Amino acid sequence: MPGRSARDLIKRHADTGPRPSGRGFLAWLVPRPVFLQDVNMAQNIYDDPKFFAGYSQLPRQVHGLKGAPEWNAIKAMLPPLEGKRVADLGCGFGWASRWMRQQGAASVMGYDLSEKMIGRARADTDDEAIHYRIADLDRLELPVDSFDLVYSALAFHYVADFDRLVGMMHRALTLGGALVFTIEHPIFMAASQPDWIEDEQGRKIWPVNGYSIEGERRTNWFVDGVLKYHRTMGTTLNTLIRQGFQIDRIEEFAPTTAQISENPGLAEELERPMMLLVSAHTT
Amino acid sequence: MPGRSARDLIKRHADTGPRPSGRGFLAWLVPRPVFLQDVNMAQNIYDDPKFFAGYSQLPRQVHGLKGAPEWNAIKAMLPPLEGKRVADLGCGFGWASRWMRQQGAASVMGYDLSEKMIGRARADTDDEAIHYRIADLDRLELPVDSFDLVYSALAFHYVADFDRLVGMMHRALTLGGALVFTIEHPIFMAASQPDWIEDEQGRKIWPVNGYSIEGERRTNWFVDGVLKYHRTMGTTLNTLIRQGFQIDRIEEFAPTTAQISENPGLAEELERPMMLLVSAHTT
Repeated sequence: MPGRSARDLIKRHADTGPRPSGRGFLAWLVPRPVFLQDVNMAQNIYDDPKFFAGYSQLPRQVHGLKGAPEWNAIKAMLPPLEGKRVADLGCGFGWASRWMRQQGAASVMGYDLSEKMIGRARADTDDEAIHYRIADLDRLELPVDSFDLVYSALAFHYVADFDRLVGMMHRALTLGGALVFTIEHPIFMAASQPDWIEDEQGRKIWPVNGYSIEGERRTNWFVDGVLKYHRTMGTTLNTLIRQGFQIDRIEEFAPTTAQISENPGLAEELERPMMLLVSAHTT
Repeated sequence: MPGRSARDLIKRHADTGPRPSGRGFLAWLVPRPVFLQDVNMAQNIYDDPKFFAGYSQLPRQVHGLKGAPEWNAIKAMLPPLEGKRVADLGCGFGWASRWMRQQGAASVMGYDLSEKMIGRARADTDDEAIHYRIADLDRLELPVDSFDLVYSALAFHYVADFDRLVGMMHRALTLGGALVFTIEHPIFMAASQPDWIEDEQGRKIWPVNGYSIEGERRTNWFVDGVLKYHRTMGTTLNTLIRQGFQIDRIEEFAPTTAQISENPGLAEELERPMMLLVSAHTT
């Protein structure tokens, strides 16, 4: 079952390596053990050595934000950053955390499940207003009324309980505070076999099925059995609205003509959206 | 190129009948000829005798609102109707217009491009607070600040200029007024060949391509070459937001277990959404 993740816009093939060590691997690192009995730990693929080695070579990890074709679209959705207190959920190597500070953010708290990611982020950052913490987004509780912006890139589709996460983010944000996040698009996530096929005329087709059947999806991406959670567009947006967010903008990333000229492989991204970008604010 | 429309949830095959007479057919019926030079007339398939004959046999036209599996989902998105002034855009035979009055609406104005539809709606309605008008939604101008609810079922995907329509509806609604509409879902609309295929295991796949390439789509539905306009989810929602609407709820219609038990053919609607339901209000 070949599969791809939106953390990589370059096609990769199935990987037959060992299964990641899975749930519970980092349980001792998580600060709120009181929840262990009722909330599953997130799967931590990122600390799998094989995964980490492959992941570290992705253009967006080597080149930073400019290596991500959707970055300009994200920037256009961000509020002015001057003086803002920012939480970066799933901060990875800290590229966005550092960029936010360069734009004038007062402080950035970066959170990631992966000890290796946080280690690398700390090593690459020399800024006392940026702090990194290991945290599972399915259990993280941010302090109430403490942030002006919550930002997250391609992390929420690993979260089992999106409703809990959204409620927590709403409490953590000040009134009028902004939430800007990207996830794998539900069109990309839904299918049982998420890989291109061709029609009789040789045109690429993205196969969609099981769209309304939400829940676990497993794909192979550097390692086998990467666990993600498919939610419909309706569920994602309605959860935000129900928890008190007002939707400001929805983008389904598509490359520009200039991007396709520079990198013809991106043209297939016009056929189906791989990423969903959402901005909203608390009311 | 077989195709289907969301106005029919029952599978239909390609029709090799004559092409509908197309643009300009009803131009003399439309009240604002000043716009003729800069706005295309909508294609009027509905007054094609062959189309009308087929269309009139659809369960939702024979049985009314209960013949539409998404009706319960729509009802749940409507505001209380008591005392409301309602515009029903693409009212067809007037089933929803009459239902709104039964729920206590003060008045309903029903608009449809089709003379045959409006004729049938008038014949089936005995209520002085319901009025029907022939109108092209690409050119209709409702009076400003005159409605508390604009409702539309499966009509807006025939509209070329959605931005104009949304701006007009916003002006026509009072502050806090509601907009509830359904359209064919962009996942359903996007593809060049919108019909089921099967994967190697025999599972149904809905083919998506050209998702980010908006504009005309032609399919065969009772007659050949029915013209619709594909817009991404992002464009649809961002247009509403930009024109001053706040999004309240998004539904991507999926049948309930009870509906599938009663009508097993509906199960395929779980594989990909055919309809998008949106509720919003003016701010």
